[in-house]
Amino acid sequence: MSDIIEPRVLRGFRDYLPEAEIARASLVRKLEVTFNSFGFVPIDTPVLEYAEILLGKGGGETDKQVYRFKDNGGRDVAMRFDLTVPFARFMAEHSDELYLPFRRYHIAKVWRGENTQRGRYREFMQCDFDIVGTDSASADADIVLVIAGAMKALKVGDVRIRINHRGLFNRFLAAAGCAGKSMAILRAVDKLEKIGKEETFSLLSSEVGKTISADILNFIEPESSFEATLEKMSGFCAGNDEEAMIAHNRLSNIYEIAQASGCADLVFLDPSITRGLDYYTGVVFETFLKAMPTIGSICSGGRYNELASLYTTKKLPGVGASVGLDRLLAALEILGKISADRDDHRLLLANQGEPELKELHACASRLRSRGISAEVFPETKKLMAQYSYAEKKGIPYALLLDAASLAEGKFPLRDLAVRSTSVFTSFDELVVFLGGARE
Amino acid sequence: MSDIIEPRVLRGFRDYLPEAEIARASLVRKLEVTFNSFGFVPIDTPVLEYAEILLGKGGGETDKQVYRFKDNGGRDVAMRFDLTVPFARFMAEHSDELYLPFRRYHIAKVWRGENTQRGRYREFMQCDFDIVGTDSASADADIVLVIAGAMKALKVGDVRIRINHRGLFNRFLAAAGCAGKSMAILRAVDKLEKIGKEETFSLLSSEVGKTISADILNFIEPESSFEATLEKMSGFCAGNDEEAMIAHNRLSNIYEIAQASGCADLVFLDPSITRGLDYYTGVVFETFLKAMPTIGSICSGGRYNELASLYTTKKLPGVGASVGLDRLLAALEILGKISADRDDHRLLLANQGEPELKELHACASRLRSRGISAEVFPETKKLMAQYSYAEKKGIPYALLLDAASLAEGKFPLRDLAVRSTSVFTSFDELVVFLGGARE
Repeated sequence: MSDIIEPRVLRGFRDYLPEAEIARASLVRKLEVTFNSFGFVPIDTPVLEYAEILLGKGGGETDKQVYRFKDNGGRDVAMRFDLTVPFARFMAEHSDELYLPFRRYHIAKVWRGENTQRGRYREFMQCDFDIVGTDSASADADIVLVIAGAMKALKVGDVRIRINHRGLFNRFLAAAGCAGKSMAILRAVDKLEKIGKEETFSLLSSEVGKTISADILNFIEPESSFEATLEKMSGFCAGNDEEAMIAHNRLSNIYEIAQASGCADLVFLDPSITRGLDYYTGVVFETFLKAMPTIGSICSGGRYNELASLYTTKKLPGVGASVGLDRLLAALEILGKISADRDDHRLLLANQGEPELKELHACASRLRSRGISAEVFPETKKLMAQYSYAEKKGIPYALLLDAASLAEGKFPLRDLAVRSTSVFTSFDELVVFLGGARE
Repeated sequence: MSDIIEPRVLRGFRDYLPEAEIARASLVRKLEVTFNSFGFVPIDTPVLEYAEILLGKGGGETDKQVYRFKDNGGRDVAMRFDLTVPFARFMAEHSDELYLPFRRYHIAKVWRGENTQRGRYREFMQCDFDIVGTDSASADADIVLVIAGAMKALKVGDVRIRINHRGLFNRFLAAAGCAGKSMAILRAVDKLEKIGKEETFSLLSSEVGKTISADILNFIEPESSFEATLEKMSGFCAGNDEEAMIAHNRLSNIYEIAQASGCADLVFLDPSITRGLDYYTGVVFETFLKAMPTIGSICSGGRYNELASLYTTKKLPGVGASVGLDRLLAALEILGKISADRDDHRLLLANQGEPELKELHACASRLRSRGISAEVFPETKKLMAQYSYAEKKGIPYALLLDAASLAEGKFPLRDLAVRSTSVFTSFDELVVFLGGARE
């Protein structure tokens, strides 16, 4: 007994039992179908990379959270902590083999040694999709359309895709004469939803005074329509500000494309969204479930000028977003959208000691060839034990073949939920009832 | 310039570019469909585990190949080097939450710091499927049927599933009075295919003399049919040997089930297959492509007595196998089974500066809603450049909408392979031609 090693996983890590893994795989599959329908293609990169590649020459702030070590050959390596940095390295390395603009998605695990007391996992899945090598409004809009398409495919109910343009915010600050304080202002605005208007106002006032703070709060307040919000935002910028005009037109183009593609009702212009400070340079997105806004954004992203400047002198502007798989899974579970999704064409062939095993397997093979998932219970146990197995596994039906029913060509099928048995008088009838393919 | 970090991956690691990743994902998807049809369910486990869990208390021989390090909390951790050890830990930890017999599959990456000079990768994907918690012939047979089903789904052409029973071999050695030398004998037999009969005979002779060596070579030579081989093997065992009789009946049962399930023609009894020395205790399998036997076994496994004895005192007998994904992918590529698999319902909407972007996106949305993958080229470039993009990406068609064709309700479609353009006079016609869904 003392030789037994206690089976346990590391803190911040977890097993996916079948139910959870089926839910995750089904979610991922639907996202993939959506990505593919927009011409996005999948890639994969190594989990381990040179630490210098992932962290830059200096190391950096993320350092402490990164799983970094010397491999058996003495190389300084690290496990990827996101999918963006490996993608940048990938594009720098392979751009000659690829076609631009490159639309890729990457759904894979990443690792961060985060504080688990905040309920964070140290191993989690990310799902990124980007269009790299173009600065077109078409690409910006495609990201919005993919988000809308994915949410529809996932049947999460109504969503709000909030968009904004970093450039317009910057030009407004320039017109207000406080571009130099943009970091502090963005940080205060970012807190609006958490701390409320009043506290944001006093935070801003201490930086730029009351008049400009009032303007800022006015600027970031959405109007009743996309167009009205856009006009108000532009009104705050200088009339001859070309940069502001370009940003205005970009937002307008994106909205037109969303309208033409039938998803304008999901798209909201929200000037309060800024998404971090350094990375994004153009349009930014966040996505909220109407039924569950408090869970936070389930898909966020934006446009960036330079994807891979650490690794290449090639200009690679792009736009993309990342789906919060864990949040989405949690939301789908609460909304009851997961169990409805299970494949119901499933069957247990109960094992009653007769007919012979080979007859049960022959029947299971015939069922599978008609598109029904079928498994033979491998041992002769009490039927109640076999039913209980099926129920725990979520299998809705048990076929109760015995020597007599087999000889008569009859198929007694137990509905495990209602606990009653119907007898089908032909194999085809059984197959059709189970939703299998007609011969 | 000197600040640029050279983009490169670690030796023994590789990126999956879209074509390779699509091929891998398609292969995995077909395996999953087969596993599901037999009632197997997916699980996942962490990439990082306590080193003690993965390596046992002592460490062990695999040690040098394992990526093992101290994490930021000082824990001795390692990256999984296979999927069997984590599965054993998983079963020990979760058996109360699960239903037995438990049929699971797990398709995921593992890491080994192997010598890359032998062409081995240090990061590769494994695909394991097992039935745990039963010693039934039904479960053994199911593994054979899954292999047959998977190979059929992958359209790899004819395969040979070679099976054997470790117990029958052991009883033969007992009858020959050389059970004590079984390790050396198994090792010599394992080399038969590589070194040939003569050298195997001399290897064996030095251990057990010429008479018994001749018997061994006779014993491991398959006869013309499964039944004939089985009778010969049993003939070498003592007549009253109960263990040999049990093994004989097991093989016979498995073959009967394969016959009843329509795949007996793929199953061969091959007494020379032993698959390693310690782990397997009953039936063992290997799978070879008839068109490419030299690539080695593409799916191997067997029955074991104890899955999780390192972590629990519960008895967990099982049977399972592992698909060699890299070998299979290589074989499918050589056999030309990969490209035929690509989705042809794909389309590029060429961007000629007219009609407006929003019209192109509206058309793309309509196409997607009918099941056609459609992407708008985001920039107005020369058509030849857009065609070249599509060709590199493997997109077969380009739609050449301009303002005039849009106004007239005409859809000029270029077939990029034959370089000719046909004009469809309705959207429905276009959709039907592209293989989309009828309205």
